Parts: sequence; C-alpha cells; structure tokens
Amino acid sequence: MDKYFKGISKINYEGEQSNNVFSFKYYDAEREIAGKKMKDHLRFAMSYWHTLCGEGTDPFGNATMQRPWNGLEGLERSRAKVEAGFEFMSKLGIEYFCFHDLDIAPEGNSLSEKLNNLDIIAEEIEKQMKETGIKCLWGTTNAFSNPRFMHGASTSPNADVFAFAAAQVKKALDLTLRFGGENYVFWGGREGYETLLNTNTSLELDNFARFLKMAKDYANKIGFTGQFLIEPKPKEPTKHQYDFDVMTVLGFLRKYDIDFVKLNIEANHATLAGHTFQHELNMARINGVLGSIDANQGDMLLGWDTDQFPTNVYDATMCMYEVLKQGGIAPGGLNFDSKVRRGSFQTDDLFIAYIEGMDTFAKGLIVAERLFSDKALESFVEKRYESYLSGIGQLIINGNVDFDALSAYAVEKGNATVSSGRQEMLEGIVNRYIYNSK
Amino acid sequence: MDKYFKGISKINYEGEQSNNVFSFKYYDAEREIAGKKMKDHLRFAMSYWHTLCGEGTDPFGNATMQRPWNGLEGLERSRAKVEAGFEFMSKLGIEYFCFHDLDIAPEGNSLSEKLNNLDIIAEEIEKQMKETGIKCLWGTTNAFSNPRFMHGASTSPNADVFAFAAAQVKKALDLTLRFGGENYVFWGGREGYETLLNTNTSLELDNFARFLKMAKDYANKIGFTGQFLIEPKPKEPTKHQYDFDVMTVLGFLRKYDIDFVKLNIEANHATLAGHTFQHELNMARINGVLGSIDANQGDMLLGWDTDQFPTNVYDATMCMYEVLKQGGIAPGGLNFDSKVRRGSFQTDDLFIAYIEGMDTFAKGLIVAERLFSDKALESFVEKRYESYLSGIGQLIINGNVDFDALSAYAVEKGNATVSSGRQEMLEGIVNRYIYNSK
Amino acid sequence: MDKYFKGISKINYEGEQSNNVFSFKYYDAEREIAGKKMKDHLRFAMSYWHTLCGEGTDPFGNATMQRPWNGLEGLERSRAKVEAGFEFMSKLGIEYFCFHDLDIAPEGNSLSEKLNNLDIIAEEIEKQMKETGIKCLWGTTNAFSNPRFMHGASTSPNADVFAFAAAQVKKALDLTLRFGGENYVFWGGREGYETLLNTNTSLELDNFARFLKMAKDYANKIGFTGQFLIEPKPKEPTKHQYDFDVMTVLGFLRKYDIDFVKLNIEANHATLAGHTFQHELNMARINGVLGSIDANQGDMLLGWDTDQFPTNVYDATMCMYEVLKQGGIAPGGLNFDSKVRRGSFQTDDLFIAYIEGMDTFAKGLIVAERLFSDKALESFVEKRYESYLSGIGQLIINGNVDFDALSAYAVEKGNATVSSGRQEMLEGIVNRYIYNSK
Amino acid sequence: MDKYFKGISKINYEGEQSNNVFSFKYYDAEREIAGKKMKDHLRFAMSYWHTLCGEGTDPFGNATMQRPWNGLEGLERSRAKVEAGFEFMSKLGIEYFCFHDLDIAPEGNSLSEKLNNLDIIAEEIEKQMKETGIKCLWGTTNAFSNPRFMHGASTSPNADVFAFAAAQVKKALDLTLRFGGENYVFWGGREGYETLLNTNTSLELDNFARFLKMAKDYANKIGFTGQFLIEPKPKEPTKHQYDFDVMTVLGFLRKYDIDFVKLNIEANHATLAGHTFQHELNMARINGVLGSIDANQGDMLLGWDTDQFPTNVYDATMCMYEVLKQGGIAPGGLNFDSKVRRGSFQTDDLFIAYIEGMDTFAKGLIVAERLFSDKALESFVEKRYESYLSGIGQLIINGNVDFDALSAYAVEKGNATVSSGRQEMLEGIVNRYIYNSK
Repeated sequence: MDKYFKGISKINYEGEQSNNVFSFKYYDAEREIAGKKMKDHLRFAMSYWHTLCGEGTDPFGNATMQRPWNGLEGLERSRAKVEAGFEFMSKLGIEYFCFHDLDIAPEGNSLSEKLNNLDIIAEEIEKQMKETGIKCLWGTTNAFSNPRFMHGASTSPNADVFAFAAAQVKKALDLTLRFGGENYVFWGGREGYETLLNTNTSLELDNFARFLKMAKDYANKIGFTGQFLIEPKPKEPTKHQYDFDVMTVLGFLRKYDIDFVKLNIEANHATLAGHTFQHELNMARINGVLGSIDANQGDMLLGWDTDQFPTNVYDATMCMYEVLKQGGIAPGGLNFDSKVRRGSFQTDDLFIAYIEGMDTFAKGLIVAERLFSDKALESFVEKRYESYLSGIGQLIINGNVDFDALSAYAVEKGNATVSSGRQEMLEGIVNRYIYNSK
Repeated sequence: MDKYFKGISKINYEGEQSNNVFSFKYYDAEREIAGKKMKDHLRFAMSYWHTLCGEGTDPFGNATMQRPWNGLEGLERSRAKVEAGFEFMSKLGIEYFCFHDLDIAPEGNSLSEKLNNLDIIAEEIEKQMKETGIKCLWGTTNAFSNPRFMHGASTSPNADVFAFAAAQVKKALDLTLRFGGENYVFWGGREGYETLLNTNTSLELDNFARFLKMAKDYANKIGFTGQFLIEPKPKEPTKHQYDFDVMTVLGFLRKYDIDFVKLNIEANHATLAGHTFQHELNMARINGVLGSIDANQGDMLLGWDTDQFPTNVYDATMCMYEVLKQGGIAPGGLNFDSKVRRGSFQTDDLFIAYIEGMDTFAKGLIVAERLFSDKALESFVEKRYESYLSGIGQLIINGNVDFDALSAYAVEKGNATVSSGRQEMLEGIVNRYIYNSK
Repeated sequence: MDKYFKGISKINYEGEQSNNVFSFKYYDAEREIAGKKMKDHLRFAMSYWHTLCGEGTDPFGNATMQRPWNGLEGLERSRAKVEAGFEFMSKLGIEYFCFHDLDIAPEGNSLSEKLNNLDIIAEEIEKQMKETGIKCLWGTTNAFSNPRFMHGASTSPNADVFAFAAAQVKKALDLTLRFGGENYVFWGGREGYETLLNTNTSLELDNFARFLKMAKDYANKIGFTGQFLIEPKPKEPTKHQYDFDVMTVLGFLRKYDIDFVKLNIEANHATLAGHTFQHELNMARINGVLGSIDANQGDMLLGWDTDQFPTNVYDATMCMYEVLKQGGIAPGGLNFDSKVRRGSFQTDDLFIAYIEGMDTFAKGLIVAERLFSDKALESFVEKRYESYLSGIGQLIINGNVDFDALSAYAVEKGNATVSSGRQEMLEGIVNRYIYNSK
Repeated sequence: MDKYFKGISKINYEGEQSNNVFSFKYYDAEREIAGKKMKDHLRFAMSYWHTLCGEGTDPFGNATMQRPWNGLEGLERSRAKVEAGFEFMSKLGIEYFCFHDLDIAPEGNSLSEKLNNLDIIAEEIEKQMKETGIKCLWGTTNAFSNPRFMHGASTSPNADVFAFAAAQVKKALDLTLRFGGENYVFWGGREGYETLLNTNTSLELDNFARFLKMAKDYANKIGFTGQFLIEPKPKEPTKHQYDFDVMTVLGFLRKYDIDFVKLNIEANHATLAGHTFQHELNMARINGVLGSIDANQGDMLLGWDTDQFPTNVYDATMCMYEVLKQGGIAPGGLNFDSKVRRGSFQTDDLFIAYIEGMDTFAKGLIVAERLFSDKALESFVEKRYESYLSGIGQLIINGNVDFDALSAYAVEKGNATVSSGRQEMLEGIVNRYIYNSK
C-alpha cells in the first residue's frame, strides 16, 4: 500500500556506506547472527500511541505534527490511522505493533460507546494484520488519561473507578486475544500517590494485587495465554508510582505471591528511577522476569520522560548484551516507545527516527554478539569470581561454613588479596568493539 | 563527669521562650504525650562515628574539628572518646548509643590485633554504661573502609573477603550482645557494583543472602535476640548499592525467604533514592518492617549524603506521624546519624547541633501527636476510601467479584464520581498544627 | 459580584485559631508591619493563566477542572473568565493580576483576528478594573505555545517567526500600557535549544538582544514606563533555555549592555536550576535587579515545573527576608504562578489554594520581619565579617595592599583564625521565629 | 628513565586492530589532521594531583592505590613523585603537566616552610622538564584543603584568610612563571557559601573580584604573560560555588569589568551544573573565553564529581568539534583531570586509564574533523538560519526594522513557515561518523 506516505518507498538495507537517509545502514533483517535472523533477535514493534497518535504537544505547546490524517475526525480518523500504521510498518519491515485501547478508537461519550468503537476498529486491524502478516506484540489499556483515573485506577480511593479499570482491562484483554497478542502489559501511570497526607498506601497496594489476580483469572477464563507484564516507572505523571523500578515491583509481586507477571523494561523509565537501562534489564534477567523492552532514551539532564528515539549505541549494545545472556527476548520484543521530537514534525521525520532507532539497535546487536561470543567481558568476569569455585569460596556457596569457621579462617589468613576491577580497561574494550564490529 | 566539655553543663528543658542556646526549647524528656514519656517515644541515640570520630574532612578538605582528644593516639584516644562520649550523652540526656566496631577501637595491624583492641575498649564502655545507665541501641560493623572491601564485603568477588566480613560481623555481634544492644544493623556501603561490565550480580546477591542467614545462625548460637536491621541506601559510596531503598530490600528479602530482618530508615538515604523520608517510613511500616530510624536531613540540591542535623520540622513531624501510626519505634530508636557541618568545627557546635536536632524531633512529635489524636488528616483519609466499606467496594475487598461483573457494573453505572484530593488544604492543616501545637 | 463562585463569600481574616477553611489565619491585609500594610509588602497578584485557563491536563491526562465557564466557547468563554477572575480576586482581596495575551482572548484563525479579539476583551477587563479597583501588575505574551514558535521566538532560526514574536510583544505592550501595568515580563520558554547539533547559539543570542532593544524602543515610543523583567528558567519546555538562572541572564544582559531589564524570580524555576529560591532572590538583589516574584513551589524530587501553591513556610520566610532587605518589591509584586493539583479539581480548591498560599506568605512576612528587626541573623553576619572593617581587611577593601604585602603579612602572621559558621544554630533560630512569631 | 614503572615500556601507536592493552589504537601523535599534528590539536596534559597524589580514598573508604612511592614520606616522597611523574608522561608521550602547589611539595608546619619546600621541589621539576622537554600547561594553588579555607579563600569572612590565599597565589604564580606555564587557573572550591543564613554574598563577590585584579597586577609585576583561567564548578565541595558555570562566571566578570580571564571547562563540572559538556564549551567559545579543557566524565546518575577517565566517544567528539570551530585550544590544552576508579588500584591501571582517555579523544578528534571538514552538520545549520541573510531577516540583523514594521510584516504575511529541526537525523549522522571515521 502506498497511500499515506507516498513519497517514501520501502526502506531497504544498503549498508553503512550508504548516504541515503531512507535506508538502513546496519539493520539487515534477514542477516544471520548467532544462528538467528537479526529480526528475530530484535523483534521490533511499533508503538501505536506515539507513532500514530502523537501530536507534538507538550505542557507549554500545541500540536505540531504534520500527519496525513490531520483533517479527519472520529472513527474515520481511526480507520485512516489503521491503514497508515500498517503501511508505515510494512515500509519499515516492522513485524509487530503494540497498542492501548485508546490509541485505536475514539473514547466516545460513554463506556459502551467506547467498547463499541473498539470493536469496529478491531475489525479493520484484523484485516490489515491478515494482509500484511504483521502481528501484535502486546496490548494494554489506558487507565490514566480519563479524569476518573486522576487518583489511580485499580488503586483509586473510589471503588467505582476500580470497576471502570476492570472493564477496560477486560476489553483490552479481549482485543489482545483477538489480535493474537503475545503479551499483555500493565502500566500504572496513576497507580501511586501525589501526597501521603491523603493516601492509604496499604489499601491501595492490596487492591492493586487484587486487580492483577482478577486479570489473571479473566485471562484464564477467555483462554488468553500470553505473558503478563508490568512496566516499571518511578514518578511521572504521579509523584510516586508503586511500580518504581524492577526491584520495587518484585518486592510487591513477592508479597502477594504473584508469579504470573514478568516485566517490560523501558530505558527512560530506568534512568528516571536513578538506574542505567542495563541495570534494570540485568535485575529483571537475574530474577527471571525480563519479559519485553521499551526502547527509547531519555535526556539525562531532564527530569521527565522524553522518550527519544534511541541513538546511543552504548545503551543499545548493553541492552542487547543482556538479551543475548538471557537467550533472547521472545515472546517479548523491542517496542519503540519513542516519539519524534516536537520540532521534528514532518512526516518523513517519523521514518527517519525509526530508521535511526532500528539501526542503533542493529548495531548494538552486532557489537553485543561479538562481545558475547568472544567472551570479551565474560572471561574477565569469570576469572574475577573464580575464588568461589574452590576452597573457602566453595564452602561458602555450598553452605558448609559458619561464622566461627570463617572467622578462624580470616584470622589465620591475616589478609585478603583483591584484584583490580579494571573498569577503564573494560570500557575501552567496549569502545573498540563498537568501532570495529561489522 | 565534667572532664572533656568543661564549659557546658547539663542541658535542661527551659521552654520555647528561652534564649539560652544551651537549653531545650521543646524536648522535655519526662513530659507525657499520649500516655508515654517524650523520651520513650523518641528513644534518641548518639551515633558514635559522626559524633566522636568525625573530623570534618571532605573529598577536598582536611580535618577541621576541634576536639578534646585531638592530641591523643591509639587506644589512649579511644579511651578518651569513650569517656567523652558518655559525658556528652549524659549532659544531653541521651539514653542510647549506636556504634560500628571501627568507631570504638583502632584497627591495628592485623585482624587479631583489631579484635583484641575491641575487647579492651569494650570493657571501658561497659563500665561507663553501668555508671550512667546509658544503653546500646544497636551495633554494626564497618565492612567498607578497609581496602579489602573495595569491591564489596559479603558481595566481594573474592571469597577471602567474605570470610573477613564474617569475622567482623561475628565480633560485632559478640560486642552488641555484650552491651545488651537491642538491634543489629547491616549497612552495605560496598554491597553493590561500580560497573556491570565486571560484575556477576546474581552470584553477589546470592552470597549476600547466604551471609545474612549465617549471621542469623550465629546470633541464635550466641543467644543474641535483638532485631536484625538492614539500612537501605542507593548510591554512595558505590554506584549501585543492592539495598537501594525499602522496596528493593523487600524484593531481595522475599526472594530468599528471609523473615528475620527489618529496616533502619535514614532520611538522607531516602532522598538520595528519589523518595521522601516519609515515603520510606511508610513503605516500611505498611510492610511490617519499620525497625529503627536514622534521623538527619540531606540537602535536596546536593547529590550526596550530607547527613545534616535535622532542623526541618515538616520532615520530623511526618516521621513521628508514621511512628505513632505504628504504635512506637521500640526496640528501635531515633539515632542521629548526623554530622556537624565542616565549618561548625567548635566543640560547642556538637552540643548545639544535637540540641537543635532533638528539639526539632520533639516539636515534630508534639505536632504529630496532635494531628494523630485529632484525626486531623486521618478523618479525611477514612472518608476518602469509604467506598470500599460497602457495595461494589466491599465485594472487591472480599474477592466476590470478577472482571465480568465489574465490567457490567461499570457499563451500567455510566460514570464514576471522584472527589478532590485536597492536597493544598491538607498542607495548610499541617502548617497550622506546626504553628499552633504546644 | 457573586455570579460564578456563588457558594463562597468574601474571604476574611479570622486569625490562627479559626477552623474555617475559607478564612485567612495569617493574612490580615490592613495590619501594619514595619510601617507598611501587609498587603503593600506582599502585593499579591493572580496569575490569569493557571487560575482561569488551567484545565488540569498533564502529558498523560485530560482536563479535570470543574469550572463555571466549562460549557462556553470562544469570546463568550473569555468574557465569562474576565468576570469570574475579577469576582475571584475581589473575594480574596487580591489587588493585582498578571496576564499573557493568550490568556484573555481566543487566538482565532489569524494574527489579525487574534489582535482584534484582544481589543474586545481588553475593554471588558478595563471595565472590571474600574469597578473593582484591581490593577495590572504585569503583562506578557505567550510566544511559546503556537507551533510557529517550536524552535524559538526571537531566537527562532526563521526570521518570519521573529516578526511574529515582535507583533505579539508589540500588542502585549499596548495592552499592558492600556491596563496601566507596572511591569512587562519576558519568559522565553522556547528561547534556547533542543540540541547543539542544529543550533547557532551565537546568532540566536544576538537576536535575543536585538529583540529586547526593539521592545525598549517601542516602549519608549508608546510611553510605556513600566519595568521590563526577564523571568529565568533553566530547562522546560526547551532542553536548554538561554535564561537559565539569574547569573546567566546577567551574563547575557551585561554582554549586550542592556540595563533596562530586571528579573522576575520564580521559586520553582530556581530549584530546577539547582538553586534555592532564596539564592536566586539574593543574587538578583545584590546585583540590583530583583524586580518581581512568582510565588510557588516545586517538588524537590520531581524534575519538572510542578508550580504548586506555596505552603512551605521556610521558603516564604527567606523570600520575604530578601524582600525586606531590599526595602520592598514594588513596582513588582508577588504573583501566584501556581496551579491547583490536577486532583484538586473542584472550584473551591482554587480558593483554598490561594488562601493557603497567601497565608503562607503572610506568615513568612511576619517571621521575616521579626528576624529582620531583631537582627536575629544579621548581627551574627555582621560580626562574622568584621575583620574587613579595620586592619588588613580594610586595606583589602580600600585597594591599599597588593600580593607582596599580603604575602608578607601572612608569613608574619603564621596562621589565620576562623570562627564557626554556626549553621545549625542559625537554622534553630529560624525555627523558633517560625514557631513563635505572631 | 625506567625506574618507577618498570614493567611498562613506552606506549606506542599500534592501530585499532591491536590487542595490546599497552598501546594506542587511535592516538597517533605525529599523524597530521587538518594541517596539524594530532598532538598539537590535543595538547594532552597530566594532572599532577589525581595521577601522582590520588590515593583512592572516598568519604567512606581508606586509601587503596598501590604506588611505587607508597613507603616514602615528606620531601623524599615528593622527589620520587617528580621522577615518577616525568617517567609516566614520557612513557605515554604526554607533553604537558598541570599542578597545584600542594601537589608537588609537603605543606609543612608553617607557610614559610611550605614556601621553602616548594622551592626545593621546583628545582627537581625544572631539571626533569629540561631533560624530557615536557612543559607546564598551567599552575594553580590549592586554597581549599587547609582548614583555614573552610569558609572560602578570597571570599572568606576573615581578612587574614584572604591574605593567606594571596600568599599562596603569589607563590603559585612565581612557580608557574618559573616553569614557563602557559596559563594560570583559579578553581574556587570554597569560594561560595554553605548557607545564606550566615553569608554576605555581596561583600564576598566584591572581594573575589578584588583578588583577581590583585593577581593580575602581580602577574604584570613579575612578567607572567600566561592566560588567566577560571574553572567553573557548581556545588562541590561547597553547596553553592560562585563559579557555578560559564554564564555565571561571565556575569561576574562583566560586572567587575574583568577582561583578562578566560575559562577552563571541565566535563564533569558541566554536568553537575545541569549542562552537557558541549554546552559549556559552546557558551565559552561564542563568548570568546574558551581557554582550556579538563577532560574527564561524570556518572550521570551520581551527584558528585566522579572525575572518571573519559571513554564516552560522543562527548569527546563534540568537545573536539567545538575546539575545531574555535581554531584550536592553544595556549590551553586538554588536561586529564581524571582519576582511576578506587577499585582500579594497580599501577598499570594508571597507564591503561590514560591510554583509554587519550584514545577516546584521539578518536573524537578524528570524527570531529571529518564532521567539520565535510560540513556534515554545518551545512544543515547554515541552511536552517538562511532567512537571516536576506529580506526581513537581514533587516533584523542590520537593525533596520522596529516592532511596528515587524508587526505589519507579520499581519500581512499571515503565517510563518518553519522547518523540521531533524534532531534524529543529525544524531544518526554523528553515529555513522563515529563508526566509519578512521
């Protein structure tokens, strides 16, 4: 289809020497890396909201985005976006999309009208999915924009709001099932508090857990077998969000014995929580809950979610390194929860931004795979911890010593020798792999 | 005793109109508040390290502090500090102290010399405790200053270092038991990582859990029945510390089924993690792990642990509010993990700083108790959540509805009514309680 | 007039023991303090934008605010807001307002329609001003919301945009003159850059200076004699704004020899720049450019402009302390550039928030005046610097020594004695003045 | 000389395919780039303090560094460091060093002893300079570590301290002149305040200006013609430092008509002030005061000066881009104000860290030069601003229009067309230049 983005043809891989802005220099979908196609490592997804619904507003400014559907309204606008979105993904060779209920259809004047609108548009999406072969990575609901969610959705002080949230998630699960979505994501932008002066955190967290369990029950009932994911974020729009970061979510899930939820890690949410992107990926991985990834980047000097297209190759490399260590991200994927800058308002900027983002992650994958297969970092790490493989270290690991024995050992030993952590050398190695990996 | 701080007599309560710098204006130890003496609500403790060992150095500057023991060295210096410390507490009416092993005795040239030094000084401390009636709130070990801990203690890549950490904690537990300490604290300043490029986080966290369990076994063996506490801190001195904040620690403890540890919350560590002091107290309280408190304050515009004496009455009020909601902080207490500013280098500044800190918390207690007993905030909160006491809310709480029923309810209902969160009004109420509570 | 806020009557001073939410507990407009009425110290102003145009949206949420004019559109809505705004100010006893062009009238479909709309509404405002006696503290233009300003206004890469900005400021100056406004403010939300990769900062700053000089020329031409003010802000909405903070603006103004501009200091902008509110006020004051104040407060743990109503008495006190040291803020004033929380969406929350803000600053004034007249801080400061009043200090001040002489003096002297900075003691003094000043 | 670092020979350029840790992969000193040798673009300097005096302490930990001079004391230790330092620079091919007075000689027990020690060691340094051909890039004084400077040096409340600071700077200027230093740097780590409650900022800033003028007079007197530099830093160790950032310093210098001072920009100080490194370089460049550079990097998630060796190629590239736009950094240079991580304590880590830092900047230079000579960014920028070269834009630049004319123009024009800022595309271009430039 060539209807909405007429000037732009299919984006092809042309290699790193190409000067064609509308080509991939690193992303070569079918290229095999470590026994798998590049596209199957990366499992790129389009974020419906930023890509098709983002208008370029900010708290101080009006819409700027030039979009082919700008003149349309209501369901007609929604239909146009379905077509445009699938054209967009087809031209970029993106095989997945992610969506909120509100992204795809107008909210209408009532909950029932909204539900009805969703069904109408869902049919269009199914049609496009069939035609293009594009799949649904995950669905979710927007339970934060409507004023009724101002104080939270499942953690609202008002029980009716809990019911509305339930109604929305029910429908979003129905839609995700209908689209064959492989995951379902919870992002709790209003699940948290603005001030402790008016908040019963204990009740709110209990309700949050109740809500998740009801969602699981409903999924079982309708036969949705996709993976549930929570997306941590610390403090925007709500001052304190209960899903602050990976470890906070794990602390919560373990309290309520919830074992059916993994995590969707977003780069910019990691940094807003005071962590690196890799930290959050690592914490999720070693706890067995790295489910999917929202790829973007924040501005480290700005205190809000800038959701920039990822162009920092360091972050992309270490992200893909964690993915490779886990053996892959499926059934999750790499969703571009990124928006073009407000000043990049032309339609072709959307393509450029995706191309740069995809190329950055393709390059990151190439570099990470070389680091990984060469054991360029890992061999150092293994040696660093080798004292736990024998002697006193092995006794510690096996639980065969106590404080008395360890103390006697230490007194006898007199001192402990440690080795350099070699941070500078390791950073230099990463640089050389970035410059030299092809 | 009047030997080290000769110019300064016992600090008495003189009331808020007093102009005597060396008097309490709010802290009236024996005053009854809500059925308990002020001192038993607050359970103030002196931090041995900052108070007796702080020298006023910073990364760019040398020692500034004028202290009566400045000319002394080695054990003689340690003995002088014991005497001076108990004189200091006696004059201020502080009934508890907290200590690291390294605070009280010189490290010596070997582990065995260190252990010996500790025994020598412990005897002096016991003597002073008996004479003054002052008690030990908690003990801990310093497993972060010695170079061998540069990469961690129980999470070191080197098994020998794990053994040294064990030897130290063993001894610190012995000492805490000997002093009748009511708690034992772990602060893991090097338990974390500097860069993921050289770190096996999974093994390190497993070892951290192993260490805690060994500590508990040892406590059982020697008959130490005090409360174990972990003190969360996010990122100083180590870039990422495993005990980032309350929820991170809970995520960790629950993973390893560790149920014998509560938390020691520090104000400045809370803010470095991106939280308010009250947030951390609240999260600990509602999870049943609010064990003890390190009272200080950070500078919200500086990115490191400034450990200032607490003079912000808002924070002190909301801290004591959480303590009152929990029904008290015992067997924990309120330890001043605070240091006089580098430029407040005179000996009398130490007294002044403690007086201001104690008065701030005394005022905070007075205000919090009035807020609490008047239900000035709570009556608003109760009303705010009342929808969960009946109707659909009650069904949610009791687990008697599912998504189908909630969705049908929401569709039928058409809309949900929410009420104002009244943040501005509630902040105004707190202000008036601060101005008016006596 | 009692048309838009029918349930709420004139807000009166009832004193600190009052439990009436809709009364002042500290703000007693006519009370004399240090020879001037409270209202003339404070010169409170209503911000037209947040108060009458704020809808409670945020980047993740829709409008929440319940307002009497919610059903109206276009000029009718603008007219209603004029009436409502003057009713609001009258009921609160606020004697000034501040406005942007866009606040008062609809933008229309063209610049000429916009200019025409402004004239229509200006007439209404003049009528209300005459009836109520309420005055205009300052006017400004909104040259940041319209998409044409996405890359800046006077610093746009596009010369036509510069012309549009000029047209708007011209009109805003006309209106401010017409309303008898005492100041004119520039806030350059888009005057800055998003990325240096596409920016010629040198040309942009030159143009910014050109623009200010043209504005002054125009003011002279039309006879506007009010004070020009720049309002510093560091990084929102634009990544780097040229008016980062007080000293940055002074560096700029002095480069271009612009001497007709003072500063409008906003609390939340100060903190976003890494400074305290008092710091910015102090830097402006000692450089002779403290012109006016935007009173609000940010959340120190959030990285964006939360513009909360000021309820922190420490900040209000130190703000009024700087104002008193300057001998007053006129012809500037204290504008509440504050918005009710998104969850404080009821109409009465607007009144409550203003009452709390006004009371906080009234209390701050009372405390600051006592500190000031008692010389509670100043006597310490004077003593601290007294070495510059005689001896070597006097020689330094008078320029009568050089490095040779100073070096000889130091070598001879051998050491320099310094005194404690007494930060803890001084913070305690401020606390007691807050608790005890009536 | 091969005495202190026996295992390590001269570090040679071996190219990017080399696996030898102790070789340069990008820094090829004699390679010509844009008509100048690489080494003359970069003008690398060793920081005496971190490199030879850094011990690996931090606020929570003792010294860790293994250094050949660890057993020595006093002047003997200082002498060893002189030899070792010149051996170190020779082996790395570094042609400049930077120093504080305190770095090179022991402080002694009095000012006169200190001055004497300096002379003794200066002779050694001169000898080594002559032998090796290594030069002095800049000198400075440490007027922040000694307790007497706790409240500031030239901005101390105590006039005697001002005299001591003068004595030190006098001597440091003498030494810098003696070494043929090309610049003299002021870093005012204590020139600022901890709390406004005890500070007279106005007097302090006046004194700071007086001090600078006296320094200039003294330089003139002794015939020192090097460039004076101020090094901005925002808030460590002092809460607020008067030299916050470039624009703050310019605001200050312009107030006091000081035109003989340029700036020494440090990467980590830029980020602590909320700016990118490039921002500070750019602001200095366009204001004609970019004098020299302290190359390091901070950790964007930590709030203090981590002074890491620079390994981020993005920052190095944009730094060298600004240097190329200025036509070079001489008589300044690129000083590694960087310290090895505390855990990189082995002697060879020092070499590795310098190699990685030098390689990163060499690579940055290569990339920047290609960007610059291809006009890869600049051609976009020029086009972006072309509207100021003719028509209304030209009239604006030439001062030939006023607000009336601009307003008439805008009304007539009806709208202004702006173009995309293309941030994503430009970031992608930088990436490709990094990957592809050799």
